[in-house]
Amino acid sequence: MKKIQIYDTTLRDGSQGEHVSFSVEDKLHVARKLDELGIDYIEGGWPGSNSKDIAFFRRAQELKLKHARLAAFGSTRHPRSAVAHDRNLQALVEAATPVVTIFGKSWDLHVKVALGISLEENLTLIRESVAYLKSKGREVIYDAEHFFDGFKADREYALATLGAAEAAGADMIVLCDTNGGTLTSDLRERFRVASEHVKTPLGIHTHNDCEMAVANAIAAVELGAVQVQGTMNGYGERTGNANLCSVIPNLELKLGLRTIGREKLKHLTEVSHYVSELANLIPRHDLPYVGKSAFTHKAGVHVSAVMKESAAYEHIDPAVVGNARRVLVSELSGKSNVLYKAEELGLEIDKSSPHAKVVVEKLKEMEHDGYQFEGAEASFQILFDKLLHHFPEFFELDGFRVITEKMGRNEPYSEAVIKLRVDGKEEHTAAEGVGPVSALDRALRKSLGRFFPCIRDVRLTDYKVRVLNPRDATDARVRVLIETSDGHDTWGTVGVSENIIEASWKALVDSITYKLKKEYGAKRAESKAAK
Amino acid sequence: MKKIQIYDTTLRDGSQGEHVSFSVEDKLHVARKLDELGIDYIEGGWPGSNSKDIAFFRRAQELKLKHARLAAFGSTRHPRSAVAHDRNLQALVEAATPVVTIFGKSWDLHVKVALGISLEENLTLIRESVAYLKSKGREVIYDAEHFFDGFKADREYALATLGAAEAAGADMIVLCDTNGGTLTSDLRERFRVASEHVKTPLGIHTHNDCEMAVANAIAAVELGAVQVQGTMNGYGERTGNANLCSVIPNLELKLGLRTIGREKLKHLTEVSHYVSELANLIPRHDLPYVGKSAFTHKAGVHVSAVMKESAAYEHIDPAVVGNARRVLVSELSGKSNVLYKAEELGLEIDKSSPHAKVVVEKLKEMEHDGYQFEGAEASFQILFDKLLHHFPEFFELDGFRVITEKMGRNEPYSEAVIKLRVDGKEEHTAAEGVGPVSALDRALRKSLGRFFPCIRDVRLTDYKVRVLNPRDATDARVRVLIETSDGHDTWGTVGVSENIIEASWKALVDSITYKLKKEYGAKRAESKAAK
Repeated sequence: MKKIQIYDTTLRDGSQGEHVSFSVEDKLHVARKLDELGIDYIEGGWPGSNSKDIAFFRRAQELKLKHARLAAFGSTRHPRSAVAHDRNLQALVEAATPVVTIFGKSWDLHVKVALGISLEENLTLIRESVAYLKSKGREVIYDAEHFFDGFKADREYALATLGAAEAAGADMIVLCDTNGGTLTSDLRERFRVASEHVKTPLGIHTHNDCEMAVANAIAAVELGAVQVQGTMNGYGERTGNANLCSVIPNLELKLGLRTIGREKLKHLTEVSHYVSELANLIPRHDLPYVGKSAFTHKAGVHVSAVMKESAAYEHIDPAVVGNARRVLVSELSGKSNVLYKAEELGLEIDKSSPHAKVVVEKLKEMEHDGYQFEGAEASFQILFDKLLHHFPEFFELDGFRVITEKMGRNEPYSEAVIKLRVDGKEEHTAAEGVGPVSALDRALRKSLGRFFPCIRDVRLTDYKVRVLNPRDATDARVRVLIETSDGHDTWGTVGVSENIIEASWKALVDSITYKLKKEYGAKRAESKAAK
Repeated sequence: MKKIQIYDTTLRDGSQGEHVSFSVEDKLHVARKLDELGIDYIEGGWPGSNSKDIAFFRRAQELKLKHARLAAFGSTRHPRSAVAHDRNLQALVEAATPVVTIFGKSWDLHVKVALGISLEENLTLIRESVAYLKSKGREVIYDAEHFFDGFKADREYALATLGAAEAAGADMIVLCDTNGGTLTSDLRERFRVASEHVKTPLGIHTHNDCEMAVANAIAAVELGAVQVQGTMNGYGERTGNANLCSVIPNLELKLGLRTIGREKLKHLTEVSHYVSELANLIPRHDLPYVGKSAFTHKAGVHVSAVMKESAAYEHIDPAVVGNARRVLVSELSGKSNVLYKAEELGLEIDKSSPHAKVVVEKLKEMEHDGYQFEGAEASFQILFDKLLHHFPEFFELDGFRVITEKMGRNEPYSEAVIKLRVDGKEEHTAAEGVGPVSALDRALRKSLGRFFPCIRDVRLTDYKVRVLNPRDATDARVRVLIETSDGHDTWGTVGVSENIIEASWKALVDSITYKLKKEYGAKRAESKAAK
């Protein structure tokens, strides 16, 4: 099985993404995780460009990588410096990594405009820089920046730059579509010509500006590239780099090539999410292979088929990349979605019973009103219990009042008053909050805490508002989605109303009910109901 | 210049995306916008699968599309129904669209497992269904579902299904990679064989499960496909469909083919954002061509080069797709952005004045707090006037109080009390609303109506809430965007606060202020201030 090297530049090119930001500590964590995943090369940064990256390489000695080789990134020498005194090359040497990756110009436009030197001088820059780093005993990867654009502008010159890197002893030459503007068909043709021109092994580095970064990387491998450079989740400047979370499984599962191996592939989803967390970005749910929605089925027609034969609607088994199948309940769903979902949640229902029909009908009605149970499985479960098992309420609401006041230019003030009963015992209390919903949440938990101490551990961890028919302006219906955690589990609930306070109230009540049911079970509620 | 048809299925396949949800009203808005953009076909929904789509087609008669042809989507007839009594086909006919798109099975596995019929029977289903719809005078597009997987499993049979559709008179046959699992190289080969097998024009429908949907669509066009099916922003089930916002510019700008034409292409970014708004999804900043980051340069080596020669680091001119170049971080760029924006709004400012610096600083501070002036130009203008021209307020707030009450299981009740002064005259009044913000809006307009009768014509036409830091749950900061109309003009305003009532209040006050300034100008406000 042919081996393709995976070269990760999340920590360098990926960190150029507009909302991506890693501390030195984050970078060390990510590097460790990528090593565990079986990535072959980890590019840690550009020591010549910023002090954070210098700090990273200094601390990288602690990493003790098991498999990956660490690379430092930089450019060919400055036109007016000798290699031995070039600030950038010296920083690369000082980074003390086994691998150094340097980029040079392949595009005549860049040589003239960005560097302001002659085409011949640029070849000298490439030759001397590569040779110098080789003389320091490094594995040298040469990134031919803008190769595909350069080829289009002046094919002979672009190829000559590869020849210069090869002559100087580069271990690998990587063809870069730096601006990401090359279509697959053009890239194939140019890659093929380059591969006939040099003997050095070739790699591929693509960007996503035409939404073709992954396809272009795969096309290059099909033409003989032995290294793919990319980033986790496709992070990177502008529209991002080739997404290794798609490249790796495409190579392993579709082309039968070896990258990180089947065993490590099972950790791909986990590592993808880990990197998002450290980059402080919400994981994209629609990412191929590793996204939460990647094996999610919504349409009724699909779900019944998926249950019969998963290969019919899934291009791979999600477990192979550590992901999982999910079935959504939505307006588009038929009976089979509801039943599948119920089964997944461990809820018992006889498929042929009239109850099943009742649940489906009720759900459709609620969805029509704007309910959505995606991300609100706890509300689904509570509804299910209520409809099928006549599950009683844990408390009875007498009433609440939420007040928001603003006097002149002062900060606003929000307060909630609530009166409810548990087992016939009344609780009447009040709380403040930064806003009306926050006040109501606090008042509700304060009043119930007396009866059910466990809800003191419960915290809201996410609050989302969606206006369902925004064109009705302030009379519009709103859907509130809440995520709650008790330190062990996390669950989602939903509420819909034209009144945002009431929508929030419904989601809050479900959130608390879920916790109480989890803690005390049906028995406790029934014993109360009996009183 | 060869024409490639663009077939948009945002309203059908796109709405299968996990977080995508359109109301009937939204669907009508989107269809109108797609028509304006020059899209050739708009697939409105699947009338056989849900009542919302039936409602859409009923109301679609109002649309009066200028260019696009509306399509209804459905499947071949049920194995046990005659075409004239098939519920799904009847729903398609009743949708009364010029175009009908039906999908049939190309994959033997699906025929056997999902439909449970013989391969021969499936060919009959396809033939009869296509012929029936043709007999009703429709343009019939046949979607060969799972064609590429079917081809792999049983090439002869997959091709036979195309033959059946062709024989029955299909106007177009679209090859679908329904599971999205096909690599470009395989897709090319299978598309080529299919194109030699049938004479009917071919289209392509791809999904993004290998992150290749766009590349696959483009590859098919290069091999002769004359129609591309996809969705705006790539919305769709699982990992989404081919993203038309990338497909269209790739075809127009890279392959020199005609789709919507260069003039309409300038609206691509705007329409992309419009569709996100209606789908209530945050626009992805890293989308190719239309994303906010697509032509964004971080400070450093790129920026100085971009200044010298934009082609050096941009694969196309962003203006061609209605996008813009952005340069991050640098203070200078911030100032020029602000000045550019001010100029755009016809606001006068001396570039070298210290005022310009004041405005830039204030805006940066507000943006850091979560303000955003896209879609809220009126708030930007008011802020500008206040900072530079010390524009006075039209009224002074003494205070307001908003109360939401719920008693037992009754409907909630919201009421706002407001006390304010105009020219020293006090107004103290109250109003109800369906929710707290609606009550506050009514109370504010009621109280000011006495002094400024013109605001009685003012109506809120849009209200949006976005939670800025959802993980802080109910303590999170929220941004409220309001759109207001007086029948002639429409303007947008924004408010940010941790308290949703206050955020709404700020946006409401700006909205009213904008109207008053428009109606009475600065003079009136100054005369009041002088009293």
